[in-house]
Amino acid sequence: MEHPEQVPQTDRATLAGLGESRLLEEVFAAYGGLPGGGVLVGPGDDTAYLRVPSGAVLATTDTVVRGRDWRDEWSTGEDVGVKVVTQNLADLAAMGGRGTGLLVTLVAPQDLPVDWVRDLLAGTAWAATRAGVPVVGGDLSSAGAQEVVVSVTALGELGEGVARPVLRSGARAGDVLAVSGPLGRSGAGLLLLRRGVAPGRDGQEAGLLDHHRRPTTDLEQGPVAARAGARSMIDVSDGLVRDADRVARASGVRVRLDPGPLDRLAGLLQPALAPADARAQVLAGGEEHELLATFPPRTGPPDGWTVLGQVVPSQADDEPPAGVWLEGRRLDPRTGGWDHFGG
Amino acid sequence: MEHPEQVPQTDRATLAGLGESRLLEEVFAAYGGLPGGGVLVGPGDDTAYLRVPSGAVLATTDTVVRGRDWRDEWSTGEDVGVKVVTQNLADLAAMGGRGTGLLVTLVAPQDLPVDWVRDLLAGTAWAATRAGVPVVGGDLSSAGAQEVVVSVTALGELGEGVARPVLRSGARAGDVLAVSGPLGRSGAGLLLLRRGVAPGRDGQEAGLLDHHRRPTTDLEQGPVAARAGARSMIDVSDGLVRDADRVARASGVRVRLDPGPLDRLAGLLQPALAPADARAQVLAGGEEHELLATFPPRTGPPDGWTVLGQVVPSQADDEPPAGVWLEGRRLDPRTGGWDHFGG
Repeated sequence: MEHPEQVPQTDRATLAGLGESRLLEEVFAAYGGLPGGGVLVGPGDDTAYLRVPSGAVLATTDTVVRGRDWRDEWSTGEDVGVKVVTQNLADLAAMGGRGTGLLVTLVAPQDLPVDWVRDLLAGTAWAATRAGVPVVGGDLSSAGAQEVVVSVTALGELGEGVARPVLRSGARAGDVLAVSGPLGRSGAGLLLLRRGVAPGRDGQEAGLLDHHRRPTTDLEQGPVAARAGARSMIDVSDGLVRDADRVARASGVRVRLDPGPLDRLAGLLQPALAPADARAQVLAGGEEHELLATFPPRTGPPDGWTVLGQVVPSQADDEPPAGVWLEGRRLDPRTGGWDHFGG
Repeated sequence: MEHPEQVPQTDRATLAGLGESRLLEEVFAAYGGLPGGGVLVGPGDDTAYLRVPSGAVLATTDTVVRGRDWRDEWSTGEDVGVKVVTQNLADLAAMGGRGTGLLVTLVAPQDLPVDWVRDLLAGTAWAATRAGVPVVGGDLSSAGAQEVVVSVTALGELGEGVARPVLRSGARAGDVLAVSGPLGRSGAGLLLLRRGVAPGRDGQEAGLLDHHRRPTTDLEQGPVAARAGARSMIDVSDGLVRDADRVARASGVRVRLDPGPLDRLAGLLQPALAPADARAQVLAGGEEHELLATFPPRTGPPDGWTVLGQVVPSQADDEPPAGVWLEGRRLDPRTGGWDHFGG
């Protein structure tokens, strides 16, 4: 089925009108100037070919879908490009790694405006440049319906001085739990959008909306944490409680959150959000992409990280045996609130 | 937007009814038994982590979309899984490489039958096992509309004894052009399906339909060709003329096809196809995934390959200067037929 249906080639403003070869020229132009010291073969052949000096490669993939992961009325193509690249690179950072190459795939209907695609190229290129990572390949595919899908694969290597990847399963009783930055910004931004808030370019609300639309975090903190002795790490993509719960279960431990730092982080979302909403976003807001890690008690986290709690042994009668606790009660990873059934 | 809309969780036969965590269990089960000697960290953490003994990694990605790349009335989920894995691994083979890891992404509506996904898992696992490649990661994403998208990224390394990747740009005047197997089978199978042919399980027509639904090629021929001295290589994914044209343009040469071997390959598609249709499919049929390569004249291709023609210098007055020629006339890469404007 190598010959997709022809559509009238009259409207230059859509993908169908531009045509695949012109679109590919724009793709190569957008990604052509990116850093690429380790790229032995770049886009345009059957595969890319990348140097891997360390002898082992990190690989992850994350996909976003219009209507599910973004809404056109709230996010531009550029926002989407920044977000999908950032969330892939954050996964590398959460292993103690950094990116060495990206593959970018777009599945889009023929009547998609070319300007949206140009924005997407600009956003992915901006986020890739910021992280010093080249785009080495990808795929373009037309879809019959209204679906727009952007899928990114990120390749990477462990950061300099990092001997092994930091897994979710390495947390040990006695470890200190810490996060590399604020929490709940993206979730707060989404809440404001849902409420119809249209803030100006400055101020707290604008910052929250920005982080929702195009999260940018300090990806170097992944290798920094690994070098500082992080024993477990994950990036906060589905909310503090849910991601901490993944670490707890993978490690077979309890994670005990302290109320003090949660209140301080919630304070950063106020007054844009009421206190209860702010607290809920700190616990459950996703797409934050800051790093959550545990460190041996004697070393503790790197400068600039916020201690959130401790790792303690799971109790013999806990069911399930691992989880996240706050003020003596278990939190439900699905909601970030109290678990009314589990503990 | 981390909380996709809830749908009634009553129908266990759909993705929504099964739920993400149960689906993930099935994914891990399907891929858990695959070979994985070089996998240092497999699915379940933030990224996979793979050994790269050679110090450089091949990476490619290819996506298929329902309605464009397959039709449910003609292909099962298992067929789709075999096909998308094969086309990715064929890209690695075309560099002289072999797979070391796959990432598999599924974007699907909540009402997609779980059985289709199970078939997809079985097909991808079968093709991965056949090639000795583990599935090391991926992504699941729900879509609002009817679109089903399967995106695969394949990582690999050069085959044993292969010093450098074989590019499209290495063809030199004097080289012999050869293909690793038959041509036009997938295109012929599609033509039969469009004509409503419903053949039995055996015979020529069944073989053609099989190759359309789930192409399988000898992927080891990529490294074999590289070791034999291939100077350029590509897999036939968009048809002989179009892919040979890519090699010609990348190398700045003319590729001159011989009519004799084309007729013999067309004969393999008869009597299922009439002679003219068979010839057209040999020239333009896509999704074949056999390998097309050029070799220095003194060594020639490996055993079992079919010589299709020669590489000759492009002529001073050719416009465009590179292309594919047959019986003194230029072939149009878009159709595989005579180019009525270009030469």
